[in-house]
Amino acid sequence: MEVKMDKAALEAFLQRDFMQVADDFEFVEIAPPFVTMALAASDKHLRPGGTVSGPAMFALADVCAYFCILSVLGPVALAVTTNCSIDFMRKPAPGRLICRMELLKLGRALAVTEGRLYSEAAPDKPVARAALTYSIPPTAK
Amino acid sequence: MEVKMDKAALEAFLQRDFMQVADDFEFVEIAPPFVTMALAASDKHLRPGGTVSGPAMFALADVCAYFCILSVLGPVALAVTTNCSIDFMRKPAPGRLICRMELLKLGRALAVTEGRLYSEAAPDKPVARAALTYSIPPTAK
Amino acid sequence: MEVKMDKAALEAFLQRDFMQVADDFEFVEIAPPFVTMALAASDKHLRPGGTVSGPAMFALADVCAYFCILSVLGPVALAVTTNCSIDFMRKPAPGRLICRMELLKLGRALAVTEGRLYSEAAPDKPVARAALTYSIPPTAK
Amino acid sequence: MEVKMDKAALEAFLQRDFMQVADDFEFVEIAPPFVTMALAASDKHLRPGGTVSGPAMFALADVCAYFCILSVLGPVALAVTTNCSIDFMRKPAPGRLICRMELLKLGRALAVTEGRLYSEAAPDKPVARAALTYSIPPTAK
Repeated sequence: MEVKMDKAALEAFLQRDFMQVADDFEFVEIAPPFVTMALAASDKHLRPGGTVSGPAMFALADVCAYFCILSVLGPVALAVTTNCSIDFMRKPAPGRLICRMELLKLGRALAVTEGRLYSEAAPDKPVARAALTYSIPPTAK
Repeated sequence: MEVKMDKAALEAFLQRDFMQVADDFEFVEIAPPFVTMALAASDKHLRPGGTVSGPAMFALADVCAYFCILSVLGPVALAVTTNCSIDFMRKPAPGRLICRMELLKLGRALAVTEGRLYSEAAPDKPVARAALTYSIPPTAK
Repeated sequence: MEVKMDKAALEAFLQRDFMQVADDFEFVEIAPPFVTMALAASDKHLRPGGTVSGPAMFALADVCAYFCILSVLGPVALAVTTNCSIDFMRKPAPGRLICRMELLKLGRALAVTEGRLYSEAAPDKPVARAALTYSIPPTAK
Repeated sequence: MEVKMDKAALEAFLQRDFMQVADDFEFVEIAPPFVTMALAASDKHLRPGGTVSGPAMFALADVCAYFCILSVLGPVALAVTTNCSIDFMRKPAPGRLICRMELLKLGRALAVTEGRLYSEAAPDKPVARAALTYSIPPTAK
């Protein structure tokens, strides 16, 4: 699968489209149809006990799905999330939280992604799984 | 349905269990099996164009589902989200974002909630729908 | 909301597009944005113990969502399910299984529906909740 | 991961617990945490145009998830589906429809599975993805 945006291009997009939260996320690997990102969890992402909150995990999955699509589709600012299903399975361990999303379908109107979140220290014990659908604007292709 | 926690009790829980984000949310109505909450959206919740972000909507649905369950179950700090499905349908209008969740089932191990998010000015045009399942710890009942 | 297809028109569509299973379903009420249908459960829909199977409940939700959309959109044979989330909450009681779906959004490319399944004898104890998204073909509108 | 039930044991369970539909499904591979099954699609599973229907795909994912759990948990007849999210992405091609499910978590009360459905001739173009959660009865472990 051809890479339409490399890491530098995706990082520029992250800074522009996710201005308020861009510093929370970093790219780990761009290898379409897979994109892997990490959450640099800080106090605001935590719940009592030091666990990363559900909304912070959702945010990581959402941004990772977005850039997973853009890495193949090219720079399209108007793709919007239309659906997400997410299962929270385990408590994250301390340390970096990783999300690896795969682009399963890039259609005329919809892009479907699926992936898992795991603590960097335990990649074989996913803390969550998620599938996200994005709507692709008609002018994008 | 009996109310096990009134607004004051729920607010105390909100401050304690959601310390970092408690000021983002407010209770609108406690009427089991329904609980209605609002997001006081600030800059950090917005995306380019002034739209409330997906993760902020997820966070509102998640916290509202949690207190919907607690209003009937009583003060149980260890209930955790196990599943969420959410559809984003429209862009929120400026102004307060409301979420009204309903407790559909309170079982031995699981509680299932469902609800909608809408801009206060347009309650009949939901911006999102969500269903969330929480796991109830064995000692809670 | 204007009704584009009445019960007779929807029944003709049911016979044509769901030929093999049309006799399993019947229309209870067409009141856009709501459509209510029933499953006439027979042996093939049951699991040990006489409970209606999950796939039979899914099928009822799916067909009801389809006709919920068509009742407003008009006769469009090519709408296809793109997503479903469903929670199974209770065992159905003997007797007719009812599904009431609501059309939440009819957009350019997607239609979103949500509803509940319940035993006719216990409408306030839903056995399942479901949300389904259909893709609308470009030529349909 | 230890196999608690081999193919013969799972087939006996399939015949007993899914009596009415057992002949629709066959085991392809038992390799915990993965189980792969196939749908022997017949007329009753098809929609106009010869496409396998959504409910037939749901049924395949549901039964495959069930046996994916049992292959690791052992013979537990009372596990029940509590949640499913499914995305339909492409039309199945003629021929056998395969589902490969993975057990992601086997917890005290819940088991979470995830997998994909594809036409045997095109394993790299999934027609659907699904995640299913089963409730494990308290006496099962």
